[in-house]
This record gives sequence, C-alpha cells and structure tokens, in this order.
Amino acid sequence: MMWNRKYLLSIDDLSIDDIYEIFETSKSMKEIIKRPIKKVPTLRGKNVCLLFYEPSTRTRMSFENACKMLSIDTISFSRESSSLKKGETFLDTLLNIEKMGVDLFVIRHSSSGILHFLKNFLNSKIINGGDGTNEHPTQALLDAFTIIEKKGKIEGLKIVIVGDILHSRVARSNIKLFKKLNADVHLCGPSTLLPKEFENFDVKIHYDLKSAILEADVIYVLRLQIERQFSNFFPSIREYNELFGIKREILKYAKNDVIIMHPGPINRGVEIDSDVADSNSSVILEQVENGVAIRMSILYHMLV
Amino acid sequence: MMWNRKYLLSIDDLSIDDIYEIFETSKSMKEIIKRPIKKVPTLRGKNVCLLFYEPSTRTRMSFENACKMLSIDTISFSRESSSLKKGETFLDTLLNIEKMGVDLFVIRHSSSGILHFLKNFLNSKIINGGDGTNEHPTQALLDAFTIIEKKGKIEGLKIVIVGDILHSRVARSNIKLFKKLNADVHLCGPSTLLPKEFENFDVKIHYDLKSAILEADVIYVLRLQIERQFSNFFPSIREYNELFGIKREILKYAKNDVIIMHPGPINRGVEIDSDVADSNSSVILEQVENGVAIRMSILYHMLV
Amino acid sequence: MMWNRKYLLSIDDLSIDDIYEIFETSKSMKEIIKRPIKKVPTLRGKNVCLLFYEPSTRTRMSFENACKMLSIDTISFSRESSSLKKGETFLDTLLNIEKMGVDLFVIRHSSSGILHFLKNFLNSKIINGGDGTNEHPTQALLDAFTIIEKKGKIEGLKIVIVGDILHSRVARSNIKLFKKLNADVHLCGPSTLLPKEFENFDVKIHYDLKSAILEADVIYVLRLQIERQFSNFFPSIREYNELFGIKREILKYAKNDVIIMHPGPINRGVEIDSDVADSNSSVILEQVENGVAIRMSILYHMLV
Repeated sequence: MMWNRKYLLSIDDLSIDDIYEIFETSKSMKEIIKRPIKKVPTLRGKNVCLLFYEPSTRTRMSFENACKMLSIDTISFSRESSSLKKGETFLDTLLNIEKMGVDLFVIRHSSSGILHFLKNFLNSKIINGGDGTNEHPTQALLDAFTIIEKKGKIEGLKIVIVGDILHSRVARSNIKLFKKLNADVHLCGPSTLLPKEFENFDVKIHYDLKSAILEADVIYVLRLQIERQFSNFFPSIREYNELFGIKREILKYAKNDVIIMHPGPINRGVEIDSDVADSNSSVILEQVENGVAIRMSILYHMLV
Repeated sequence: MMWNRKYLLSIDDLSIDDIYEIFETSKSMKEIIKRPIKKVPTLRGKNVCLLFYEPSTRTRMSFENACKMLSIDTISFSRESSSLKKGETFLDTLLNIEKMGVDLFVIRHSSSGILHFLKNFLNSKIINGGDGTNEHPTQALLDAFTIIEKKGKIEGLKIVIVGDILHSRVARSNIKLFKKLNADVHLCGPSTLLPKEFENFDVKIHYDLKSAILEADVIYVLRLQIERQFSNFFPSIREYNELFGIKREILKYAKNDVIIMHPGPINRGVEIDSDVADSNSSVILEQVENGVAIRMSILYHMLV
Repeated sequence: MMWNRKYLLSIDDLSIDDIYEIFETSKSMKEIIKRPIKKVPTLRGKNVCLLFYEPSTRTRMSFENACKMLSIDTISFSRESSSLKKGETFLDTLLNIEKMGVDLFVIRHSSSGILHFLKNFLNSKIINGGDGTNEHPTQALLDAFTIIEKKGKIEGLKIVIVGDILHSRVARSNIKLFKKLNADVHLCGPSTLLPKEFENFDVKIHYDLKSAILEADVIYVLRLQIERQFSNFFPSIREYNELFGIKREILKYAKNDVIIMHPGPINRGVEIDSDVADSNSSVILEQVENGVAIRMSILYHMLV
C-alpha cells in the first residue's frame, strides 16, 4: 500500500515506509520550532480548516501552530458558533466550507468512522483529529516518534498501555502503530475497561499492573475520562488510583530507564501521580513538542 | 449616484455601473481562489473587524477567507465574548475597536437599519453582513453574479423567490438587485409570510407554487427559519413542504434549464427536497464559491 | 533595578528609565498604526498566546492588533474551549502550550498574584493582562503615556482617581505608576470602596468628590463593576451617580484644561455622564488608540 497523501484517517492508511518518511521530515520540522524565527514560507497560500466538534486544547492548538509555522492560513469552526444549530447536515456544512477555498480539513468528531463516510463526498484532503473511540492517528505518530527519539528504536521494546482501553481512540491508534513497527505491545486495565476482544490485536492483556509493567521499556498511561460515565465501569476513582494509577513505588518493576508517556491532559492523582508525571522518566511534555513537529510533517507531505 | 466605497449597507448604495464593476473584478478574484497558492499581497496591512452579533457560518467564513486571500488581517468579535455584557453601548464598542486600527467593519446585527444610524459616528468603512430583516447586500450580489455566470445575463429572466419573504433580508436585497438589473421578479409563499405590501416593490405575487414557477428561469428558495417562531405563521412544517417545498415533480412547470438557488443553510425535506438540492439544476454550492469571490471584489474596491 | 524583559507582571518590575524607554518606542509604534499599511515585519516568526480567563474585549483585541501590526502570530485560548474542564491544572495547561512553540504569554486571570507563582515554572515570557484585583500594568502605562501626550509631562500633576478603588487592578497599577513618575495622586470614592489602607500608597484620600477634584489636572474615572455584587457596597446605582458620578457641572471645580480618563468599558449615566464622556475634555478614545501603541512597544522590547 502506498499512502495517497489525500487522507490520514487511520494508521492503516500508512505503510512502514510512509511512517518513517513522516518521522524523518519531523526531525527537520522540530529544528524550525526551536529557531528564534519559527516560520517558513513553505505552504503559503494553503488553507486548512480546523473543525473540532469535541472540546480540544492541545490537538487543535498543536495543528494551529503547525500551520502557522508553515505559513498555512487556518480557519476554525466549532459546533457552538455553527449552522448545525440551524438544521444543516454535517456533510452540507463541509461541502459549503470546501467551496470557500479550503485545501484540507482537520476534523474531530464524536462519531467513530464518520470520516470514512464523508471522504467519498469531498474533494478536500482530510486528517483525522480524533473520531469517537476509533482512531487518533497523529497522536500515535507523535508517540512513536517520541519513543524512537528517546530509545533509538521502537522495534522489540516492551510497551505497556495502561488504563481505559475500551473508550480510547489513542489506544487503538497506538496499538496499531506500535504493532506495525514491531514493538511488544501489552495492555493493562480493569476488565470492564479492557474487554477480551482486544486480544484480536495480537497483544498481551493484563489485569494486574505490577506483572504488566515487568521489565517494561515504555509505560503509556491513558487519561481516565472522569467527566464521562466513569462510575459505570469502576467503583471509585480512589480505588482506580490504588490499583491502576502509576505511582513512584510501582516503577521499580519496570526497567530502570523506563519512560512514562501520556497523551494529556493528565489527571494528577488519578491515573498518574504527580511525582511520576514530574519525574525525569516522564516524557509527557516532549510528546507535546513532538506533536507540533509531527503535524507539520504530515501537513507538509499532504499539501506540498 | 456614485458609490462612495465607504459603505455598502444596501443595494440602494450601488449604481448599475458599480454592480457590473464589482462583477468584473469578481471574475479575477475567482481565478485566485482556484490557484494552488490562493493568496495575493494586495491588501497587506489592512485590518478588517468581523462583528457578528447573530450566529453565522457561511457569511463569516466567506468574509474571513476573502480577507485571507487578499492578505488582509481580520479580527473577530462575537456577542458572547464581548463587553456588551458589561453594559457598554454598541456604538461605544465600535468606537473603541475603530481606535485600535480597524479599516473596515463587516457587521451582522439583529436590528434592521442599525448601520445607517451607526455610520454617522464612525470613520471606518462598513459592509452590511445582514441587518435584521432589512438587507444582506453581499448575498444578493453573489446571487446575481451566479445567475449571470450560469445564464449569460440576468435581464429579462423570470426569477421566482419562494418562501418566507416576510422575515428575509436576503429576499429584500435580492428583489432590489434583480429589479435594478431588469429581471422579471416573482414572489411566492403562504400569505402570512408574503404580505400584500411587497407589491410595492413592483413584483408579481403568487400564493400557488405551480403557477408561480411556470416557465421560470431561476427558482430562488429561501431558508425556512424553523428555529424561530414558525408555528405562528404556518400550521406545520410538513404542510409547508407539501405546498411550498421545492420537489422534483414540480420542476416540470419551470423551464427545462431552470436553476435552483438557495442562500443556505438548507433544510433538506423542508423548503427543498434532497433530490432537487443535489440535482444538476442546483447551483447552491456555486453560490458559496462565488460568495468568496464577490466579497474579495467588494473588499478590494473599498480598501485599495 | 533593571527590567529583565522576561516578565511584565507589575509596575514594580520597571524602573523610571524602563518606563520612558517604553514611551519613546510607543511614539514610533503609533506612527505605524496611522499608516495606510499598518504592518511591519519586525517580529515575524514570533508566537504569542493570549490566555484570557476573564471576559475581555478591549485588552485582548488591543494585544491581538498590536501583535498583527508587528507580524507576530497569535493563538487565543479561553476558558470555555479549554481542557481545564477536563481537570487539568492551570500550570499544566501553560506548560503544554509553551511546548507548542510559544514565546510569550499574555494572561488575564481572576486570581491576584497567580503569575508570580507561575513564572517560576515557565521558560516563556509573560505579560500580565490583568490579575484579579492586583495589577494591570499595560493599562497604567497607556494611561501615563496619554497624560504625557496631552499635558507634556506627568510630574507634579494632580491626578484624581475616582470610584471603586477597592476592587480595581487598574487603580493599583495606576497609583504605583503615577507615584513613580512623581504625580500628585488623589483617590476619591465611597468609604466602602476606598478603605483607609490605601493611605499606605502615600496618596491623599477623599470621600467628597468636589473637594477631591479641586484644581485637578486629570480625573481618572474607574468603571463601576455593576455586574458584580455592587449592592453589598453601596445602596443604589442612582445614589452612586449623584455622589460620585462625573457630571458636567462638577467639572468647574477642576482646572479648565482638565482631562477625563476611563479604562473602559464605560457605563454611561453611572460613573460618568454622557456629556462628559463625549466632551472635548475626554481622552477616553485616545487611551484606546495609545493602548495598541504601548502594547506594540512592550512586545517589541520583550521579543526583539
């Protein structure tokens, strides 16, 4: 398979070569971010529409900054200010915006898989900024890029994804990507949030944190979405923290040089304790920085 | 009358020569939109404030994109985030923003005619982005431009505007403009939404859809604002759709090459059926594209 | 003390030399605002994040325009669209945004003094856009600049600040700055809104408006924040207007060439009557214009 550079909806769209090409370009993009003058004229005159139908800080701002550094014009659109209230269908909204001269949409939407349906009607390019519980491919790419940056490689590493796997689009994209790059992927969480079906991804499933992270190279902590109906799946946040929260004392079971990752925003004292989040093992803020570089790279490959 | 290029508040501000000059420039602007690099430095260093006091997607984004393609800086301001909540008058808000270096305001406001009052106190240029039920001149201009593009001319064409004429600023601006350009203008709608007074515009009034669209060149379908108090004016949406909704089978009464227009957003199955909206007769998305070109042209003539 | 140009959190951060240097540059910036092409490439590739956790029109737009005229990219962030709702700490939000390539934050927050805490954890530069009831240094700077522009100097002038001193960050910053520049500073307001403790600032305190403004060069009227719990502090707005509102007939007690200032937004008929606000003595709109120039100057000194 060869990436057509028109859509990035799923990790499935990308071959291993595509992925490493994105990573290679991301290194150059990261240099731009570190310059005093963080702007190149490369994609001047291109127009990206950021359509976020779910609240987002980091992904939206990350794309927005990535666009600015490449001199791409952006236009933002949120549900609140929109004509959706006026009864327009989502597809009609997109067709209208497209006609206003948009080259590429970045879309976050609560419906899993909706972009696969929409793309058949649009001429514009599309990046999935997170669709329901389905996928969040740019997050997975920045995560794998960060692992390689820190560890020199990802192949063969033991990566343990911990938390609410069931509801996590980040988990699904990361499982796909880490497997594709030949990592040794383990999942850990309470059984209500980690159904047996995940074995179909050819990963190892654990319900006990200590044994899961034994000799781990990477612990990837998922955000607990406590604003959603968490109590349907687990008795209490405190109990979750006791059993699955990442604490300093538990890290001794992992490798000495284990790195701790999290897609953000973090809930301190819930899925991760502050002393772990702020420790030298944590690469959470590096993930954020690499997020801009990865998105610049993807935008470049899709729009140049 | 000669357009002073300081205000575009009403179709009345424009002579026929002004109108065709705007159309002529719009053709060049449309070429820019179709380029891979959709940006010219023409109006760099100009500053436009988009003040939308009613929700809007398409008009706001259309102006915003038009500005970006001409390298105009924009600043947006919506009621929600504003000092109006703090008791400031609307005029004081405008005077303050003007002092921050704004060259031109695009204003949408629920009060009909408010801009004619405000302009006496401001030095900035003003474009009416829709005022109450009064006017929406840039919409009318893009509509007439689209008709000429499709039909080669507008003079003598039978144009039937269908729907809630009473509450429609689009209808008022379009009636004025189509008349000014010597089209044969017909209105059609339920009598509660199409009062006799509209005869003063020197147009033909119909209460039966079939006879209205007989031999029509253009059917202009107005949006039914079902989010407002529609039920005060008509028994039900279903009954409206039966009597005044534009359906495939009704089109046989019009000319073969009739075009269907709508200012958007459309309510599928209400004022227009999906098979009509998506048919080859529909030019609804062309209207959207031309909207950006027309607004670029107007901004150019007012700011250059 | 030498301004490190990394933070502008308080008037205390600035020496008298720093202040006059900011004023000097503001004069050049003001020329740019008056040009037909209001944009210089000076700070191209710099990235400023505007974080306003309280509603604001004028300060946010003033900074946004100042940035655009200097070719700085801006990214805006308001509480509503943010991850704060998702349980992220304010500091984590800032650390995340910083990693996305932000050079400088402009922050407005309801907690007095919070920026002094935050700055120890951030590498970015910070400008205080108003923190609780503590300080609003850029407002004070534009006010002093306006006084000097109008009066030729500020030293020795009698400046009377009138109104709700207790809750006003503008008053606190202005008292500090006017004192630093050797003005003769007087405060006037009802005793519930002007506690005795303000004498510690080495200013004169008045509870009677007429005697306060006797021979005044400048009357600085504070906004009455009637949207907050005003009734806890004063019986009625009408009574406030009678006793402390600035009316035409009261101005005879001040100097003939007194100027009237207000940070905006004004409540007409509350703390200031319309005939005063709109009179030739009023420099309220000049303050707004100078606000953009002062902020351009500060951004220039901090980012160049």
